[in-house]
Amino acid sequence: MIQQLLAHIAQFCTIPADKAAGLEPFFVQKEFKKKELLLTEGHRCFEKYFIVKGCVHLCYLKQNGSEQTIDFALENWWTSDFMAYQQGTAARFSIRAIEHTEVLSISDSSQRKLLEQVPELNAYFHRVFQRAYAASQMRVRYLYDFSKEQLYLHFLAHYPEFTQRVPQYLLASFLGFTPEYLSELRKKFLS
Amino acid sequence: MIQQLLAHIAQFCTIPADKAAGLEPFFVQKEFKKKELLLTEGHRCFEKYFIVKGCVHLCYLKQNGSEQTIDFALENWWTSDFMAYQQGTAARFSIRAIEHTEVLSISDSSQRKLLEQVPELNAYFHRVFQRAYAASQMRVRYLYDFSKEQLYLHFLAHYPEFTQRVPQYLLASFLGFTPEYLSELRKKFLS
Repeated sequence: MIQQLLAHIAQFCTIPADKAAGLEPFFVQKEFKKKELLLTEGHRCFEKYFIVKGCVHLCYLKQNGSEQTIDFALENWWTSDFMAYQQGTAARFSIRAIEHTEVLSISDSSQRKLLEQVPELNAYFHRVFQRAYAASQMRVRYLYDFSKEQLYLHFLAHYPEFTQRVPQYLLASFLGFTPEYLSELRKKFLS
Repeated sequence: MIQQLLAHIAQFCTIPADKAAGLEPFFVQKEFKKKELLLTEGHRCFEKYFIVKGCVHLCYLKQNGSEQTIDFALENWWTSDFMAYQQGTAARFSIRAIEHTEVLSISDSSQRKLLEQVPELNAYFHRVFQRAYAASQMRVRYLYDFSKEQLYLHFLAHYPEFTQRVPQYLLASFLGFTPEYLSELRKKFLS
């Protein structure tokens, strides 16, 4: 598993081989069955996750009892409830495996020790989080700007992999549609 | 100006005094009058900005010709169109001074040289961008979850400084309201 993380790190920065060899003990390998929770809303969030294999969604329970999906993550993505992770507070989101999922998880305290030992990794996380934040700026623009139909077409064009792997009811929730409306749109654009 | 950035950096990480003393030449000090643009949508985005004094808003032109504000930034915040900044592409947002604003700007190429010389700053940017991304996860939740009235009350409770400094028409745009609707809400909750 660690090889995949090392390959991802190598895309962003260089760390000395001896330090790379010492990375593994800081991470915990975890596997989750389809529909199993990595993180439960309301519980303390101690970890962030690097997805080695699989796909998850980030969601929360709405006041009406239904579940709202706000994000997905798949291979080579980092995911967590980052506010809860950095503040050590109760999670405001759940994270659930959509498929059988394998992750490398790291706690905040392990990460502190890791970054003391391999400070070069700050360059990796700097790039990863700047990129994630950049994408979130664009996402906010789309949320303000796009009609529901445009949102769907944008998602289809830019994230074709998700539309193959993510169940339609989760995609509908993410896009803010009812499953029926998504089904109508699919028919319209497939025909 | 650099003292304020150094003080902000010190909140997140420690850099040796001799390196801290060498930081200034990597940044360009800039001043913008009220309503002056730091960045223009459609132009290449070469810089990111650390706000030393003042307040700016991030916006774009909608298809109907009106302007949509999607974010604000004030003292000690970093702002840019980060997607355009990191990809060297045309900006999808404009950034405009709401007040007389003083910034330290840094180009991507200067930042590369800076981080080679002071790699400790990656720890600073790692923390800054993880925090910004964490806030954006919560923001997406609010955009999905809150009614317009709840959005307004949340903003009022969590960002009282903005409501003092930001013109009402920009606040209305940010919240997705018409200025008239914001005016009604203000009356309702002030009375």
